[in-house]
Amino acid sequence: MFPKNTWYVAATSEELTDKPLGRKICNEPMVFFRNENEQVAALEDFCPHRGAPLSLGRICAGKLVCGYHGLEMGCDGKTVAMPGQRVRGFPPIRSFPVRELYGFIWVWPGDPLAADEKLIAQPIWHDKPQWAYAGGMFHIACDYRLMIDNLMDLTHETYVHADSIGQKEIDEAPCKTSVEGDHVATARFMNGIQAPPFWKMALRGSELADHVLVDRWQICRFSPPSQVMIEVGVAHAGQGGYDAPDESKVYGVVVDYLTPETDTSMWYFWGMARKFKPNDAAMTDAIRNGQHKIFSEDLEMLEQQQRNLLRHPNRKLLMLNIDAGGVQARKVIDRLIAQEQDVANTLA
Amino acid sequence: MFPKNTWYVAATSEELTDKPLGRKICNEPMVFFRNENEQVAALEDFCPHRGAPLSLGRICAGKLVCGYHGLEMGCDGKTVAMPGQRVRGFPPIRSFPVRELYGFIWVWPGDPLAADEKLIAQPIWHDKPQWAYAGGMFHIACDYRLMIDNLMDLTHETYVHADSIGQKEIDEAPCKTSVEGDHVATARFMNGIQAPPFWKMALRGSELADHVLVDRWQICRFSPPSQVMIEVGVAHAGQGGYDAPDESKVYGVVVDYLTPETDTSMWYFWGMARKFKPNDAAMTDAIRNGQHKIFSEDLEMLEQQQRNLLRHPNRKLLMLNIDAGGVQARKVIDRLIAQEQDVANTLA
Amino acid sequence: MFPKNTWYVAATSEELTDKPLGRKICNEPMVFFRNENEQVAALEDFCPHRGAPLSLGRICAGKLVCGYHGLEMGCDGKTVAMPGQRVRGFPPIRSFPVRELYGFIWVWPGDPLAADEKLIAQPIWHDKPQWAYAGGMFHIACDYRLMIDNLMDLTHETYVHADSIGQKEIDEAPCKTSVEGDHVATARFMNGIQAPPFWKMALRGSELADHVLVDRWQICRFSPPSQVMIEVGVAHAGQGGYDAPDESKVYGVVVDYLTPETDTSMWYFWGMARKFKPNDAAMTDAIRNGQHKIFSEDLEMLEQQQRNLLRHPNRKLLMLNIDAGGVQARKVIDRLIAQEQDVANTLA
Repeated sequence: MFPKNTWYVAATSEELTDKPLGRKICNEPMVFFRNENEQVAALEDFCPHRGAPLSLGRICAGKLVCGYHGLEMGCDGKTVAMPGQRVRGFPPIRSFPVRELYGFIWVWPGDPLAADEKLIAQPIWHDKPQWAYAGGMFHIACDYRLMIDNLMDLTHETYVHADSIGQKEIDEAPCKTSVEGDHVATARFMNGIQAPPFWKMALRGSELADHVLVDRWQICRFSPPSQVMIEVGVAHAGQGGYDAPDESKVYGVVVDYLTPETDTSMWYFWGMARKFKPNDAAMTDAIRNGQHKIFSEDLEMLEQQQRNLLRHPNRKLLMLNIDAGGVQARKVIDRLIAQEQDVANTLA
Repeated sequence: MFPKNTWYVAATSEELTDKPLGRKICNEPMVFFRNENEQVAALEDFCPHRGAPLSLGRICAGKLVCGYHGLEMGCDGKTVAMPGQRVRGFPPIRSFPVRELYGFIWVWPGDPLAADEKLIAQPIWHDKPQWAYAGGMFHIACDYRLMIDNLMDLTHETYVHADSIGQKEIDEAPCKTSVEGDHVATARFMNGIQAPPFWKMALRGSELADHVLVDRWQICRFSPPSQVMIEVGVAHAGQGGYDAPDESKVYGVVVDYLTPETDTSMWYFWGMARKFKPNDAAMTDAIRNGQHKIFSEDLEMLEQQQRNLLRHPNRKLLMLNIDAGGVQARKVIDRLIAQEQDVANTLA
Repeated sequence: MFPKNTWYVAATSEELTDKPLGRKICNEPMVFFRNENEQVAALEDFCPHRGAPLSLGRICAGKLVCGYHGLEMGCDGKTVAMPGQRVRGFPPIRSFPVRELYGFIWVWPGDPLAADEKLIAQPIWHDKPQWAYAGGMFHIACDYRLMIDNLMDLTHETYVHADSIGQKEIDEAPCKTSVEGDHVATARFMNGIQAPPFWKMALRGSELADHVLVDRWQICRFSPPSQVMIEVGVAHAGQGGYDAPDESKVYGVVVDYLTPETDTSMWYFWGMARKFKPNDAAMTDAIRNGQHKIFSEDLEMLEQQQRNLLRHPNRKLLMLNIDAGGVQARKVIDRLIAQEQDVANTLA
């Protein structure tokens, strides 16, 4: 249950080195590789000769060479050579539109003719020296929509992340969800509270007092098909909170690109972009390590929740106001899937 | 294939500490926890909010708190609180009748109205200072009825446990099976034999001569749904055997509570109650360790037997006289299942 | 998809020691053991008493004793004894024709009446002191026919075994496939080339110059149901190649007996027979170790190819001239399976 005429993050740029990378996305086994100009190609992971996975092969002069019998594959899925064979009659394999932008490899699993690079949103921190970014990736055995629910409702921080970023004020402050077209936002504001340890550290790092009360915010922004950008920060209390001038606040964005692997598993690209001390490499590492630990705590819960739901496929869940972000995001996703279906039916 | 309107051992009392315990019983994922009065509750392991397993949560002031978003569950399956929410409209989840008796947690997976505490049989050793008890638990990937067969026919000791309690006299002595109502007993008497090492140790421990010939007995008693108590002991030969006066015999009970997890897996609660040297803690440990080792030897055989039977579902097995105990016990079980079905049909 | 009225290698002679050996062949779980005369028997791995696997038992005086309750099984599948029981009425279990010949245990999974020992081909190196043989066994999760394809087309050596026996000349030299009855041969001749390291070693070992150009050959010979003998060797260039006199060449046979375990897994008995330095035990070990390493490189490719094909069951693969050996071998196999089916239909 995912849209296919859309861009998903398939990998980070650093993952694509001098070897092919096999990864299943939206139920399609794909192989990614760079050609001689370092441009990325995405093909189905199936050699047309004998069905070997091309991802077990190697890259030679920008061609993907099958590791079994040496068939050479071009970026467009056409065989370009094979030792001792004329390859003109070889059936091409499927290629997928792919782009490398903003540090990620983006793939379009649906109709290639509909692929439009302009639909890939530029992240706010891209190409801005005042920002730093670091992140990582997890494989999680759950429907990507359970992770959207998770990210659009941060009250779980109080329980799942009780020892790190959770604080009682989170589930005491009401949240508000709003929808604009295909975009959903759930905002929570906690005013006049003690900053939790992470934000104390950030205040000190920005040469701001860390022992005073702060206004804290969390604004979870969903955009289709499955990305959630969470604006997070604190300002010295009474300076305007989220709208306070830059001199009295520290803030960043928790970055979540979710990519379906199958109907019940996903690739989770997570990270944090921050607008303080961008050149402090030790802080960058510390934040990434902290995030890795925190997001790991969600894994077991999500995977076990998935198993419970598979056992009870027809059981109705509750939709509380804290769930509104996830509920609205799913409505957007359902609408996009229905639109794709309508187009498919019209063409059929 | 198991009765559901009956009590099964779900856990030992010691297993239920200050954390919830998740365990599947008769195909039902359940969560067990203690309330503020240390009383045990059993609920289905499914948070009504978003389907997370409640067993991943924690216990706060006798309430089970979901580890995902903090929903608080009472012992009866009704939500009692959730941060920022009115919970009156929340659908209750299923609760199961549960009792803590004789060192075990007992659960009734069937119709709660039929649950009757008096049906839990009091073990012979309970509350008697002359007796000592120790045991353990295994998970086994086999139908619990294969374990009943195993326990009701101890000739397997000669082969599976050749290096420990087995002795040639066991399969040379004929056994006799009798049925009384829902209870089945298979008895074997071996008179005038050498005591095996375990019973020599027990004789010495009771200050009885250990080098003389003994009369040995094994009486396997099945009671529904799936418990097997095996009376075992030796008496100095010619003193009356099983009926000899206490001064010339040593004896105990091998305790087996079998609980179906699924149709092809089970929880095996095993132990030994003995009526000699009850205060010798070192002997208690030694017996438990020995039993652990001996019962481990049955595991692979039973699991592989199960796999073989699944491969040949229609193949007829032999029913020899040594199998009579298991055969009769299965008849009792089949009758109880049929009775439940009759009641269900009448109500439908 | 395999013939059943045929001999398959079930094990090496050394594998059958004083313990029974359980192994599934052509979807049949079998148990192999030696009787008191060291003769091998093959039975289904299922005790007629309670369904325990007989392979968990032991061998006593040439009888297979079930490890559960001591039933004793003869070589013909008839129960010969059981403690305290009359066994005359016990149903026999299935026995399979089995032979020990040429260092291997051969089993016939089909109609026992059709089993004919003369159909087991004598290997060329058997009983010849000028030859040495060593080998090993792998379990591979792929249809045995994918391994036939692999072995009948050695162009894969250039890619899969690039670091060991592969050389560019292999896929540059055309190969030729011929069929004679049920036998298929694919031959490749590479004349006037540098000998690769393995053959340089063999030349030196035979006191032949190793720095001169050689003529190299590879002749892959398939015989039903699933054996591939590959004649390999080099001769000093211009001496007649394959037909050169023995004084100017070194050669051997790569031995491959493939045995289906299930439809998508197999037992792979591999080895090398060589006609040089037969008494050099260190060389024998070195060749076995080298082959072990080389064949290991094929494992992942074949298993992943199998998974890819299972995902795309209806997708057509290419049949190039390099694939002709495999294509023709599969035709032979298909014909044998169809013949068995015809016979079965006639009898039905």
